[in-house]
Amino acid sequence: MNKAFTLLLGAAFLAMPAFAQQQAEPLDAAIVEKIRKEGLENSQVMELAFYLTDVNGPRLSGSTGLAKANQWTKDKLVSWGLTNAKIDPWGTFGKGWEVEKSYLALTKPYYQPMIASPKAWTPGTNGLVKGDVVLVKASTEEDLAQYAGKLKGKIVMMEVTNPIKTKFEADANRYTDEQLQKLAAPVQPSTRGPISEEQMAAYRARRALAQKMTEMFKNEGAAAVFSGRGGSHGTFFTSNGASYASDAQPVLPEFEVAMEDLARMSRLLKAGIPVQVEMESKTRFLTEDPQGYNVIAEIPGTDKKLKAEVVMLGGHIDSWHAATGATDNAAGVAVMMEAVRIIKALNLKPKRTIRIALWGGEEQGLFGSRGYVKKTFADPQDMKLLPEHGKVSAYYNLDNGTGKIRGIYTQGNEAVAPLFQEWLKPFHDLGATTVTTRNTGGTDHQSFDAVGIPGFQFIQDEIDYDTRTHHTNMDTYDRLQADDLKQAAVIVANFVYQSANRKDKLPRKELPKPRAARS
Amino acid sequence: MNKAFTLLLGAAFLAMPAFAQQQAEPLDAAIVEKIRKEGLENSQVMELAFYLTDVNGPRLSGSTGLAKANQWTKDKLVSWGLTNAKIDPWGTFGKGWEVEKSYLALTKPYYQPMIASPKAWTPGTNGLVKGDVVLVKASTEEDLAQYAGKLKGKIVMMEVTNPIKTKFEADANRYTDEQLQKLAAPVQPSTRGPISEEQMAAYRARRALAQKMTEMFKNEGAAAVFSGRGGSHGTFFTSNGASYASDAQPVLPEFEVAMEDLARMSRLLKAGIPVQVEMESKTRFLTEDPQGYNVIAEIPGTDKKLKAEVVMLGGHIDSWHAATGATDNAAGVAVMMEAVRIIKALNLKPKRTIRIALWGGEEQGLFGSRGYVKKTFADPQDMKLLPEHGKVSAYYNLDNGTGKIRGIYTQGNEAVAPLFQEWLKPFHDLGATTVTTRNTGGTDHQSFDAVGIPGFQFIQDEIDYDTRTHHTNMDTYDRLQADDLKQAAVIVANFVYQSANRKDKLPRKELPKPRAARS
Repeated sequence: MNKAFTLLLGAAFLAMPAFAQQQAEPLDAAIVEKIRKEGLENSQVMELAFYLTDVNGPRLSGSTGLAKANQWTKDKLVSWGLTNAKIDPWGTFGKGWEVEKSYLALTKPYYQPMIASPKAWTPGTNGLVKGDVVLVKASTEEDLAQYAGKLKGKIVMMEVTNPIKTKFEADANRYTDEQLQKLAAPVQPSTRGPISEEQMAAYRARRALAQKMTEMFKNEGAAAVFSGRGGSHGTFFTSNGASYASDAQPVLPEFEVAMEDLARMSRLLKAGIPVQVEMESKTRFLTEDPQGYNVIAEIPGTDKKLKAEVVMLGGHIDSWHAATGATDNAAGVAVMMEAVRIIKALNLKPKRTIRIALWGGEEQGLFGSRGYVKKTFADPQDMKLLPEHGKVSAYYNLDNGTGKIRGIYTQGNEAVAPLFQEWLKPFHDLGATTVTTRNTGGTDHQSFDAVGIPGFQFIQDEIDYDTRTHHTNMDTYDRLQADDLKQAAVIVANFVYQSANRKDKLPRKELPKPRAARS
Repeated sequence: MNKAFTLLLGAAFLAMPAFAQQQAEPLDAAIVEKIRKEGLENSQVMELAFYLTDVNGPRLSGSTGLAKANQWTKDKLVSWGLTNAKIDPWGTFGKGWEVEKSYLALTKPYYQPMIASPKAWTPGTNGLVKGDVVLVKASTEEDLAQYAGKLKGKIVMMEVTNPIKTKFEADANRYTDEQLQKLAAPVQPSTRGPISEEQMAAYRARRALAQKMTEMFKNEGAAAVFSGRGGSHGTFFTSNGASYASDAQPVLPEFEVAMEDLARMSRLLKAGIPVQVEMESKTRFLTEDPQGYNVIAEIPGTDKKLKAEVVMLGGHIDSWHAATGATDNAAGVAVMMEAVRIIKALNLKPKRTIRIALWGGEEQGLFGSRGYVKKTFADPQDMKLLPEHGKVSAYYNLDNGTGKIRGIYTQGNEAVAPLFQEWLKPFHDLGATTVTTRNTGGTDHQSFDAVGIPGFQFIQDEIDYDTRTHHTNMDTYDRLQADDLKQAAVIVANFVYQSANRKDKLPRKELPKPRAARS
């Protein structure tokens, strides 16, 4: 899941009236029961997750790990009898990148290894490097100028001003009934005003200063940069330290460092006590193939007329680099694969074609799903509809961690709400009860929604997504909740099957206007 | 705090009747208020803790870090005007040991750095070593025999059979009123039966097999051992992998590995997928001075008659090696130092002499306090009392982490209970209310109690001691709760001051029998 997008959408929840009453479509209870039994009793979801994470490793966009995972998932889908399987280019991505060595330790005032990772797309060090760390305190360009001539061969870091707070609340949580009820209720208009001119100016100034710093550190010949974005107890958050673009400007080696280690260096330097470190990192850029890929495969429809229509499901397969991307998003991939495995294993013969898509490049901007939608259905820029646009019923996405499904977001599509309520009914006992007309963002269903195709993300229990797993070095297989993933696969399988076999495609919202035409 | 001792004592709580009524000794409210004001408003406890942890580093028994910390604390105490300050040998310890390099990474099936530390007193690797990891599954000697001839140059590890469970409870907690009331109530006799012959036999068999394994791995020429004892999210627990004794048998290099990394290797190997690692560790044995030391200093008494008598306070200054021992036990050291600083700063002129002792070798068996007690007061073995035994009033200890004081354990000393209740009264508003006649163990007050000198440990809020800090790689300055430590220092200062100035020494329990005379 891509955080930047979540934040953008945070304020954009739609206020919706109560659901329109539609005629109920009773489910075939025997088939639902079969799906449930297969998914809960013969699940392969944890084995799929094991291969995606432990066996395959990190799956950063453009990396060998992602290429391996694409191949493995495609082969697995084919082994179950899916057809039209392909590793399908979605467009130009840029450079791949991967870590080949990462070592960082404090050497003065005493020796202690540190917990850290190179930031994605940063270069490695020149072998094993020893150096002094310099604390840069600058809130203006004048402050920064004081460091001129003092940074050659040094490792630079900012002061840590947000010490780690001990938490007396649990890292992991599930939705309470009350929270779910609140989620299902119409959204109150936000009382937060728009961002002020002053706030915007301050933000731009900070950005400009940060840019100046980056340039200065490089021009002054600093050896490396240390940074950190939170986390605690050995868990740290990771991101990129440079662009993946093929023509990206070179930057300094940069480590994202666990807050305990970073805060210690900050305290020592602030107290005037010299800090020396040794470090060695080796990173590799993969420039041979700038393309990005999705994995696509199908269970062909069996109804003469309806098999030309498609129901899609998916999740992104790329991850960040400092862990094996278990909850972001091997979990979603494993659940979606398991959902099609269930349908295939039960030989359910869907009327419409079911198509699974495992997206690449999600973490850099939903690239895989956007590229696919653009070439297959429509470009949100001009909204010229391709023929397939009329043939796709819905897209279901999973990318909110390892938590079980508690319901679904309709993204403001009122007409689907009664259907979804009906389809959740057999799973109320498993905790999936809630249909909300709210929007949720940050992941690949948005690419479909952007061109007027019904695209949905399920409501999932949070578990420890925000505290421990999402974009951290601790997003490992250990974090996966087996029972939650089994439950999710069963519910997705049912949604997909019902969508494939009902008389009509799913009702749609009004088509969005072309982006180019918006003011 | 030394866990083995806690466990031993767990079943040994004493059932006690309600406290005997003693005449109350009203406190001098003005002095209590001064202590409180100085400790809460002018505290230096966090600065002391910063120098003990961040500046000084790990303080494993016998290490350079401990020697530096001894010197620093002694100098600091002298700077406040304490007298008779010395770094005082308590007896023979053995070898010191410290880490000079620690690097471990997965290299197959893909590259990823791991979080790990050499186990204390194990040797380093022979430079950078690459090797295959072998999962040893053996519950009998026959199982073990199957690995003969297969381990040369390999890294050996046991299967991880206790996967990390996601916790839906907080890591950090404070005592509730209910829990404190329960703690103050007489203990119910344990319903747990004694350990059965069968259980003991099984335990002995496991120990014997573990010993055989250690020998076999060494004899077969394995390159290293990986092990782990729990923890999660990058937090792991550390211990020693060999004896500190000067004549200890050589062992293989051994890494304690974060559970996420260890469990991944275990899962991969169990699935038949080869695991290769690279590692480099360098450790140093310090054999020049086999002695262990305590730091001792005094505020001399001012009463002509009573100044020959002593009130003691202290905590152990040694720590484990994979972090800076913040809650175990820089916290206790900083609080005890701050308590004497408060008394000194206020120029309170105690009647009896106040003596602070910062113990070494606690983690290996309360060695520092035992050695001191033996040479100063009595040997519990023969209980021949030295002259000083009659002159010491009490010893107060702090070593249960960073949590504030919620009360005190009297260790079955009924007669002190009413005094302690009185002395806690001015601090009820700070959460310190509870006097329990129960025993608590695991730390240095036991050395005093063992020879019949009133020795006490305070009840402290747990915070995240058991989950995140105690003997972990995450026991860092970040874990310290400033307000808790300030509160603790104020309460300790008052207890020490009251003990120093009351008419009599503290009442004692009956003298224990010589250990040698017990059946």
